[in-house]
Amino acid sequence: LKPPSQLIRFRSGACGGQTPYNCLLCNSTKPSMLNVHLVPHTHDDVGWLKTVDQYYYGGRNYIQHAGVQYILDSVVSELQKDPARRFIYVETAFFHRWWSEQSAKTRNIVTQLVQEGRLEFVNGGWCMSDEASTHYSAVIDQMTLGLRFLNDTFGECGRPRVAWHIDPFGHAREHASIFAQMGYDGFFFGRLDYQDKGRRMKMKEMEMVWRASESLKPPTADLFTGVLPNGYNPPAGFCWDQSCSDDPVQDDPELEDYNVDDLVNKFISISKADVYKTNHIIMTMGSDFQYENAIPWYKNMDKLIHYVNARQKNGSAVNVLYSTPSCYLQELNLAKQIWPIKTDDFFPYADDAHDFWTGYFTSRPALKRYERLSNSLLQTCNQLEVLGGSQSRDGPFGKGDRRAMAVAQHHDAVSGTEKQHVANDYAKRLGIGWDHCQVLVSNSLAALSGSNVPRVFCENLNISVCPLTEGSKRFSMNVYNPLARPISWSVHLPVNGSSYSVQDSNGMAVNSQYLKATFDPTTGLLSGLTNLETQQSIQLSQNFYWYNASNGNDESRQTSGAYIFRPNSSTPYTISSKPVNSVVQEVRQQFSPWVSQVVRLYEGSRELELEWTIGPVPVDDGLGKEVITRLDSSISSAEYFYTDSNGREVLQRRKDYRPTWDLKQTEPVAGNYYPMNSRAFIKDKGSQLTVVTDRSQGVSSLNNGSLEIMLHRRLLYDDYRGVGEPLSEPGEFGDGLVVRGRLLLTLTPPETAADAHRPLAQGMVLQPLLSFQDGTPSAIVEFSALQASLPPAVHLLTLSQWDKDSVLLRLEHQYESSESKTYSKPVTVNLQKMFSTLKVVGASEMSLGANQWKANMTRLQWNTGNDVSKSKSASVYLQLCAAALVLAANRY
Amino acid sequence: LKPPSQLIRFRSGACGGQTPYNCLLCNSTKPSMLNVHLVPHTHDDVGWLKTVDQYYYGGRNYIQHAGVQYILDSVVSELQKDPARRFIYVETAFFHRWWSEQSAKTRNIVTQLVQEGRLEFVNGGWCMSDEASTHYSAVIDQMTLGLRFLNDTFGECGRPRVAWHIDPFGHAREHASIFAQMGYDGFFFGRLDYQDKGRRMKMKEMEMVWRASESLKPPTADLFTGVLPNGYNPPAGFCWDQSCSDDPVQDDPELEDYNVDDLVNKFISISKADVYKTNHIIMTMGSDFQYENAIPWYKNMDKLIHYVNARQKNGSAVNVLYSTPSCYLQELNLAKQIWPIKTDDFFPYADDAHDFWTGYFTSRPALKRYERLSNSLLQTCNQLEVLGGSQSRDGPFGKGDRRAMAVAQHHDAVSGTEKQHVANDYAKRLGIGWDHCQVLVSNSLAALSGSNVPRVFCENLNISVCPLTEGSKRFSMNVYNPLARPISWSVHLPVNGSSYSVQDSNGMAVNSQYLKATFDPTTGLLSGLTNLETQQSIQLSQNFYWYNASNGNDESRQTSGAYIFRPNSSTPYTISSKPVNSVVQEVRQQFSPWVSQVVRLYEGSRELELEWTIGPVPVDDGLGKEVITRLDSSISSAEYFYTDSNGREVLQRRKDYRPTWDLKQTEPVAGNYYPMNSRAFIKDKGSQLTVVTDRSQGVSSLNNGSLEIMLHRRLLYDDYRGVGEPLSEPGEFGDGLVVRGRLLLTLTPPETAADAHRPLAQGMVLQPLLSFQDGTPSAIVEFSALQASLPPAVHLLTLSQWDKDSVLLRLEHQYESSESKTYSKPVTVNLQKMFSTLKVVGASEMSLGANQWKANMTRLQWNTGNDVSKSKSASVYLQLCAAALVLAANRY
Repeated sequence: LKPPSQLIRFRSGACGGQTPYNCLLCNSTKPSMLNVHLVPHTHDDVGWLKTVDQYYYGGRNYIQHAGVQYILDSVVSELQKDPARRFIYVETAFFHRWWSEQSAKTRNIVTQLVQEGRLEFVNGGWCMSDEASTHYSAVIDQMTLGLRFLNDTFGECGRPRVAWHIDPFGHAREHASIFAQMGYDGFFFGRLDYQDKGRRMKMKEMEMVWRASESLKPPTADLFTGVLPNGYNPPAGFCWDQSCSDDPVQDDPELEDYNVDDLVNKFISISKADVYKTNHIIMTMGSDFQYENAIPWYKNMDKLIHYVNARQKNGSAVNVLYSTPSCYLQELNLAKQIWPIKTDDFFPYADDAHDFWTGYFTSRPALKRYERLSNSLLQTCNQLEVLGGSQSRDGPFGKGDRRAMAVAQHHDAVSGTEKQHVANDYAKRLGIGWDHCQVLVSNSLAALSGSNVPRVFCENLNISVCPLTEGSKRFSMNVYNPLARPISWSVHLPVNGSSYSVQDSNGMAVNSQYLKATFDPTTGLLSGLTNLETQQSIQLSQNFYWYNASNGNDESRQTSGAYIFRPNSSTPYTISSKPVNSVVQEVRQQFSPWVSQVVRLYEGSRELELEWTIGPVPVDDGLGKEVITRLDSSISSAEYFYTDSNGREVLQRRKDYRPTWDLKQTEPVAGNYYPMNSRAFIKDKGSQLTVVTDRSQGVSSLNNGSLEIMLHRRLLYDDYRGVGEPLSEPGEFGDGLVVRGRLLLTLTPPETAADAHRPLAQGMVLQPLLSFQDGTPSAIVEFSALQASLPPAVHLLTLSQWDKDSVLLRLEHQYESSESKTYSKPVTVNLQKMFSTLKVVGASEMSLGANQWKANMTRLQWNTGNDVSKSKSASVYLQLCAAALVLAANRY
Repeated sequence: LKPPSQLIRFRSGACGGQTPYNCLLCNSTKPSMLNVHLVPHTHDDVGWLKTVDQYYYGGRNYIQHAGVQYILDSVVSELQKDPARRFIYVETAFFHRWWSEQSAKTRNIVTQLVQEGRLEFVNGGWCMSDEASTHYSAVIDQMTLGLRFLNDTFGECGRPRVAWHIDPFGHAREHASIFAQMGYDGFFFGRLDYQDKGRRMKMKEMEMVWRASESLKPPTADLFTGVLPNGYNPPAGFCWDQSCSDDPVQDDPELEDYNVDDLVNKFISISKADVYKTNHIIMTMGSDFQYENAIPWYKNMDKLIHYVNARQKNGSAVNVLYSTPSCYLQELNLAKQIWPIKTDDFFPYADDAHDFWTGYFTSRPALKRYERLSNSLLQTCNQLEVLGGSQSRDGPFGKGDRRAMAVAQHHDAVSGTEKQHVANDYAKRLGIGWDHCQVLVSNSLAALSGSNVPRVFCENLNISVCPLTEGSKRFSMNVYNPLARPISWSVHLPVNGSSYSVQDSNGMAVNSQYLKATFDPTTGLLSGLTNLETQQSIQLSQNFYWYNASNGNDESRQTSGAYIFRPNSSTPYTISSKPVNSVVQEVRQQFSPWVSQVVRLYEGSRELELEWTIGPVPVDDGLGKEVITRLDSSISSAEYFYTDSNGREVLQRRKDYRPTWDLKQTEPVAGNYYPMNSRAFIKDKGSQLTVVTDRSQGVSSLNNGSLEIMLHRRLLYDDYRGVGEPLSEPGEFGDGLVVRGRLLLTLTPPETAADAHRPLAQGMVLQPLLSFQDGTPSAIVEFSALQASLPPAVHLLTLSQWDKDSVLLRLEHQYESSESKTYSKPVTVNLQKMFSTLKVVGASEMSLGANQWKANMTRLQWNTGNDVSKSKSASVYLQLCAAALVLAANRY
């Protein structure tokens, strides 16, 4: 294959090759001194208390004073005043909008600032994604969207070297793995468990190498990771933003309030705290939406640098400088230290004994599901845009869907920690994205089928509403499967007729049986599960419960809220010990007026489907409720359970235990909750019970054989983390939101569990898209974009039009290094024979973020000492790869 | 005399003469449209909730977010981005400090902005002075200090054309007269009585010509005066400062919150309110300490101008432009309207029916007195600096005293409406000024006397403390009289010996008797006053009372506070109907443990002295107290009384009456209070009882023959005008401030009253300075700077070193046109024969503010129609004049 590097317009930037210029122009440090790196920054939430539009403009400032447009205006103005000044910018969602409003003159100024390293992009995704409730597929997309804009605009100098997740409430190992594979040299964050932080400060382990995959050969998924000293704030007393009240440097010696000596002493003392290994320390100088007026910040930092360094004449060995995370990282890399290794993750996050941020794993379950569904639709759209060719792009197909999905990854979006009106805005944006996407799907299907018959989409099938199927005597349904292999998928359609004849594109029908579920005749509860193929059987009961959300107590005033989960008691209330069951080819269970479930066993499927419906959760009794379902089985799981990280690799969890430090457990329930994105399981020697879910949720195992999943939350108090609202979603009628969702249960031997749950979870993430036509279709059409199914180990992660002549393709080995005897093996795909209608004329591998040729991707190396684990995983199993394929303009 | 114009360095500026450049480069207007002049401005209190230093730096932002340094930084930055943008700056106290910190580069930029009319100075004094409690002498000084800085720095382009008192709480006629004589073309303010404003809006009399003197020939004291439409704020909904929460212009049509059409409609509707005469309207775009971040303001005003003017294409006749008060004024002047005339003043100010801002006339009586004393000292210092020559300026004499006095004129300083800690700061600054001044006095007296014996100043004589006189057996006292004629002045000194021999510089003594006071033998109260020369006698009783300060009631929640006076009842409580008197060559009256008085009749004096001592005012009973003394006499004053305006001209007042509109009186006491700076009087055909006071106070006459003066206030509630503190001065020991003061009473025929009260008041304002030496002085010295006393009608207002070779001299005719048969006449002074030791080699007359040659002073002319009053005062009686005198380096 011909490499596409000459064909694709992959902007290399003025600083990359043509000139000897190095983008990373760092202010110089002093080797014999303690160097304090001041990093001016702003943290701009892509929606939280206000919508992303309101934040950009500075609308509704009565809610929160914040206007991002002015931040960039002001910073660019101030950077020009002194070449030593630095600034970093993070959220491309905002930067992109601002850039679009600037004059050529301002753009030239900004470009120069970027080329000179005075304005540095860090992280650089569309947003700073949440790490607990996001799926890796959407995270990679949102990063790609931001990085591509930076590359298109600034070339190599605009490529972020450092990942920067200063605010997310806990950190997923999969995120670190993704960042490593995207070519980032380092990662900094602010929030980790307070006990963990205490230990790390004492041991000088605030900086480390995170080995973020058990499958990838080091250092592929190694990521240098630093914990920032002050969260992401400035040290106490040194906040000079308009939103702060710290005294400025008052350096007129004639004044009453002259404070230079005090400030310098205080700053030097803070800098010398001695919890880091090297003679460098980073100081984040900024916070939420700061630098709207950059003048006070820079003016006072200029003075601070001047006065602290002036002490050097008198023997002080502290040197302050304007810096960036990249410049700081470079110094750490030069320091030739041996860095400790971290292999687990940073969940759950607690900032105090009774303050576990495990509530948001489940907060706003409907939004979490809508986000997941929207991702499935977007992937389908991306694929169909490629397959349908230029005709796909007729009409208002827009790019809004990509941006809406990218925005929804923000750590106050899908996390559920935003205000209600903002949650509504996220949903609305996704909804508009659906409209755009449906235009494209119609165009593409018309191109592929040759039929322009109008296509109808039924978005309300979850509540059995579809005007077309309900009103038409004869209709046809198109099913588009975005997976790279066949899937069995049951469809429920509301109809009015009493008898329908159902035909596939060939006119045939199928069925089979693999699993058996039993119910207790006395209680009506699920009582057992049998795998008929393996003849495995377990006792399995399931019920619904609610924890009473804490309003604070004598021990701590901490309440349960959008972020925090804190039950009043570790024993949840049972909603019903004896649901009313009715059996109609499925078991319908009514637990209470506001909790019901349908249990289904589809013909031909190997999983049990539990479709739960919860709400409106009553709160008239004054009790906030955190609704869970708990599966209690005969599996001897001891205190272990397993959860996935962002839908990919799986981590082992253990009750009241942390791999890295000696845990003092203070919240026996909340402190054992972990995020589950796609799956969780418990197992013993013979059996593994796996639950695959349709959205992100919180999960725990508090007893042997037990697995509990939090499904819905309705709370009465704010939890003092800024959102300023109790999480009490009103729903359409104001009486409380009703949420419906699905859990899929499999029972298998542990060694073949992954063979089932990997494709099952992918099928849940990328679900078939249904569209309808009235009457009989003009031609019955079956179309496959692939010449053949991809091998079972290979997942088609991304197929998306890149520019006129090229597409972005991401293929993924979806099995971990040792989870499947059959599939955890290297596998080969022939790109040239992959597509049925597209001729691949060239291909070249890119970094995961698609902003660098893989061949050019060099990352900083870090010494981790006598590293035994290096040889552990010799082969690459679960590596994501991105390839830019250049396609011929004509099809086969 | 040779004119000094070639000798004196009076910067004329690049735009004044050498180039054809006009400083007033205004953006163009459209004659056929309504032109809306946007005037970007900031209102920067020279101390209020924070001290002037804290405001400058932005210290203690937890009290109030405000940092003036950043305002000027940010505005200068933003002005450079578009030549159409404008800004005005007002308070030279702040600008001067900021300027001193700027680089040459920034100074050049600012100079250019000033020359191009993009940055315009308005008002331009050191501060925006209070109008109720300031004395004209200190006001002229503070204006001169600011204007001189602007002239020295920017020349003619820096000369303010417009006076701008947008915040002071009522407006004095004398201020308008001073502004006119300083060459201002117009005056704008924001606050006037709500009833007055209502009438003016209806009658389109918001803009007028204020004829500010009854003595000066028009148009000498005529001042074009405009009432701003929105106080000094932007119209509702258009505040785009960081401190506001109005929505910005959201002009991305794709956004949910797009609001351009709504904003444009609203702005056009506000602009068309139609309460002004011309097709121009001014809009103040700014407020307290705004523009710390100028970006949001300018960015949104740019958009507003763009979108409102874009409507012109569709027939809209509204044109918006960036403008300044001068540019607006020029348009009004070109409009050739006939303007109404105003001859009274704008006191008292009420912003609602029960909200009379008459409390601050008396608030903080101790600060008010200290300010007055400090002015006396400063004038003395200025004179002695001239007289003592260069030797005066040895050591730390400083200029701090001038600045401290200038700062104290601010409308939240001497007004008493600042927070307690800020009041303490003003007093401290004045105190430091005293230290500097005393160095200079010592130097100068040493030079004049030829004796370097150390001189001691006794600042605590008011509480009978002076270590030197108390400890020394023999000491000498220097008395410096800053008046231009002899004065009789009694001195009380604390001594320990039982017998002292007192000698003047010649060793002789004097005495005489003109007045008789009688006391009621039953009650002990003053009962009558007799002028022994004229054989006039009146019944006169005097007592002390307190009004119970309102805490708000059903009628209105308005409380009495630092600004507002609102008694609970119109009948005050009597403190004692029978004081305990003791007579020791003076009558000592004890009314209560916290109110006492000494009544004195000095030999040779024509006035009765009432020295009152009040405090600590008890508030344990939960009642705020407003303490007055009331004089009840047999004078048939009907409902008329008289008060001075800033210590100069006198205005007639009448109970429950306003000259300009039909008053609906809602507060029978507070609504009849007026400021008295130096004097107030009542009179009938035969007798005039005049009270001369030592500080600014509130005064009223609520009954025939009665005059009441508010002396002290101690309150328990804030009055909702921003200061956020109850006015309850703690005093040195925390139990409440004790205040002592003096009232001087004269009884004369009305026609000769001024002959007495004019010199008496000047003597109260400029009092002799005492300094002491231990032992016998080496030489007994008597020195007069003048060859002879000035004529009685002439007051030496200013004698102050201007630069090395020149002094600033201000002489004043101190009688109104018809108040004295003897003195209300033109008078001539021979400058060349004026001084005893200084040779006048040249002199040239300047404007009152000393920033223009009088000969060059041309002001805009305003048509006031068929103006009968024009011929009323044909001759100039009470005109202030300023002359710059160029002195020889050597003395006679």
